[in-house]
Amino acid sequence: MRAEIVSVGDELLKGQRVNTNAAFMAGALAGIGVAVDRIVACSDREDEIAVVLAESLDRADLVLVTGGLGPTRDDRTRTAVQQLLGRGLELSEEVFAQLEARMKQRGLEVSDSLRDQAMVIEGSHVIPNTKGSAAGMIIPCKERFKNHYLILMPGVPSEMRAMMELTVIPYFTALSSSVIRHSPIKTLGIGESKLAGMIVDIEDRLPEGTTLAYLPHAAGVNLMISTIGRERDRVDCDNRSVVEAIVSMTGKFIYATSEVTLEETIGGMLSARGMTVAVAESCTGGLVASRLTDVPGSSDYFLQGFVVYSNEAKEKTLGVPRETIETFGAVSEKVARAMAMGCLEKSGADFALSTTGIAGPSGGSPEKPVGMLCLAIAKKTSGILLSKTLMMHGDRELNKLRFSEAVLGELWQCLRNG
Amino acid sequence: MRAEIVSVGDELLKGQRVNTNAAFMAGALAGIGVAVDRIVACSDREDEIAVVLAESLDRADLVLVTGGLGPTRDDRTRTAVQQLLGRGLELSEEVFAQLEARMKQRGLEVSDSLRDQAMVIEGSHVIPNTKGSAAGMIIPCKERFKNHYLILMPGVPSEMRAMMELTVIPYFTALSSSVIRHSPIKTLGIGESKLAGMIVDIEDRLPEGTTLAYLPHAAGVNLMISTIGRERDRVDCDNRSVVEAIVSMTGKFIYATSEVTLEETIGGMLSARGMTVAVAESCTGGLVASRLTDVPGSSDYFLQGFVVYSNEAKEKTLGVPRETIETFGAVSEKVARAMAMGCLEKSGADFALSTTGIAGPSGGSPEKPVGMLCLAIAKKTSGILLSKTLMMHGDRELNKLRFSEAVLGELWQCLRNG
Repeated sequence: MRAEIVSVGDELLKGQRVNTNAAFMAGALAGIGVAVDRIVACSDREDEIAVVLAESLDRADLVLVTGGLGPTRDDRTRTAVQQLLGRGLELSEEVFAQLEARMKQRGLEVSDSLRDQAMVIEGSHVIPNTKGSAAGMIIPCKERFKNHYLILMPGVPSEMRAMMELTVIPYFTALSSSVIRHSPIKTLGIGESKLAGMIVDIEDRLPEGTTLAYLPHAAGVNLMISTIGRERDRVDCDNRSVVEAIVSMTGKFIYATSEVTLEETIGGMLSARGMTVAVAESCTGGLVASRLTDVPGSSDYFLQGFVVYSNEAKEKTLGVPRETIETFGAVSEKVARAMAMGCLEKSGADFALSTTGIAGPSGGSPEKPVGMLCLAIAKKTSGILLSKTLMMHGDRELNKLRFSEAVLGELWQCLRNG
Repeated sequence: MRAEIVSVGDELLKGQRVNTNAAFMAGALAGIGVAVDRIVACSDREDEIAVVLAESLDRADLVLVTGGLGPTRDDRTRTAVQQLLGRGLELSEEVFAQLEARMKQRGLEVSDSLRDQAMVIEGSHVIPNTKGSAAGMIIPCKERFKNHYLILMPGVPSEMRAMMELTVIPYFTALSSSVIRHSPIKTLGIGESKLAGMIVDIEDRLPEGTTLAYLPHAAGVNLMISTIGRERDRVDCDNRSVVEAIVSMTGKFIYATSEVTLEETIGGMLSARGMTVAVAESCTGGLVASRLTDVPGSSDYFLQGFVVYSNEAKEKTLGVPRETIETFGAVSEKVARAMAMGCLEKSGADFALSTTGIAGPSGGSPEKPVGMLCLAIAKKTSGILLSKTLMMHGDRELNKLRFSEAVLGELWQCLRNG
């Protein structure tokens, strides 16, 4: 099966929004062996939507459309599709009931406009919206576009993503004759070129149908091993052999071979041991705590966080000695160590992490430039386990992210080593 | 003038890269009054590039292309253009001299392949590459595409951006006769349909050349008012009149009419008054502190944050009375108020915010379901300013984001009201 993606919205054409939706959909389709041939962004105008959809439906088996499904006047996708396919609307009792339940749950009155929102294209398979109100549709086409499918989804990323994962991907997986297996390999503390150098021999001898992609992101690089073929056993075996070869070469940099985050990995390790963690943050400003608490069930092991931005807060809240700050500066391993020890004591946690650094853009000096991070990790039973000084090279938000990745990475190392 | 953008590259179609280049180019073109009608991402294949370029050149005055200009085998854009326009290549002495100088500067030998890299399409205007080696080209077309321009640039974002800023935008500004103005309106605490209902009369009577777009995001909806025309004064006046009309109807929901974030707006208000803030977070897990400290210079007004996840931390760190937690539960306005007061006292800040709630997916009950948030705001000079209980409907990360938006929104209200 071959697909095209149509992203509807003037905001894309004006450069007001980056089209992240298309990349997500393309990645998800690649995951079930469906190749995307084109991605087209077009305006909200009804006639333009109809023209673009007709062109894409002429070429592709599947045309995935996002945007223009909301309740406002500039949402014209549904009407454009009616015009293109010559179909009417019908009430979806399922969507209506869901919308009604949502309104009641929120104590809102059921308005007339609800019926309008529950109208779908005739003959379509409804895609439930678990995150919002506009329903999606899978529309099997007839006549001119026979055997082709039009898939309509809202442009709100969280709504579209849930629809892709819960409905669209399962629906078309069942129709696709290829089997595919993707294995992520998530690494930490190694750059793209060094990693590529380590696995060059594996990359030169990939089995047929298997590809290896480097997925660099703000704080490191992950790999994706994809194998496509007709037989499930063969695909699984080829894919696994490559993953195992890479793990054997680069294992010490790998924190996961599945789709889990670093904070989930750490959470799992802490839970398994019945241990707890607390954090003391200066330059990361709460981001480390926020990442740890993004994990469902993190209240089992995350006790508390201290965001000690001012020197006074470092002293008063965590008992960092004023003379340590005055002698070594707030950004120093000495202060990071004192923060970690104070955090351990105040929280009673098994592990305490600390960060102090300069996220930028201001606050840097020749000795302590923007991007400098001091971190420490302390353990209840042994005191300070380590402290380090690192340099990052990004803007403020990127530095915060890389700082948080660095300290979480160190905790992961400590947990793995004992 | 009307434009289309063509982004060449298999990595876009596989979802391995988000097309940020297209948004940058579209925004830059919008800035000189050139409307973009379509953005197309297509594969690296030479025949496919030629087909897509032909379609775009048939429709648009300008077609901007990125990608496929490098020295490797999968870079086929130049050949595709030769095929499409029936033109040969010619050596650009300018590009050759620049490449040669680069090589010498780096102490590298001048290789034969340098001449190949300096070959440009006959009759093109060279776009110097100040950040890399592949030259760009502005190609005035003839015959079938008469008076249309094809603009070729590399896909490396920094190289393309420099080319746009230094050459492409100045070149076409001189040829464009339109001016354009965009004004964002950023709102809080109001949904898309309610907002649309409030401004329906304004939307019905937009001046010619002015459009109004809804930009919904996870925690609310923003508006973008765009006006295009021939005279700068007229465009500015029409645009401003719409913005003013919307502000007068919905002002209480608007926190900004420029491209700033809520946390930047709050930061600006606090800085202007010389006031400080501290936060006490349970369910938001550090996200409120992290958002506040995303703003450069936030150390001027952000003192500290307490992430009190466990009940014990709420008691020990912030002095929330155990009996309050036992009687009313950790998720209650009483506890939120005690957290805010404790935070005020411990931090010495002028304002203290608190959040306690259930982000999910577990931890909910019939009385206190997932998505429930209790928040409070306290002020040094007046004690508790407000506490509230709200309900959100998202997954864990979305709830955290909406919780943080809610409490920051309340602080913004407090700051605005006095």
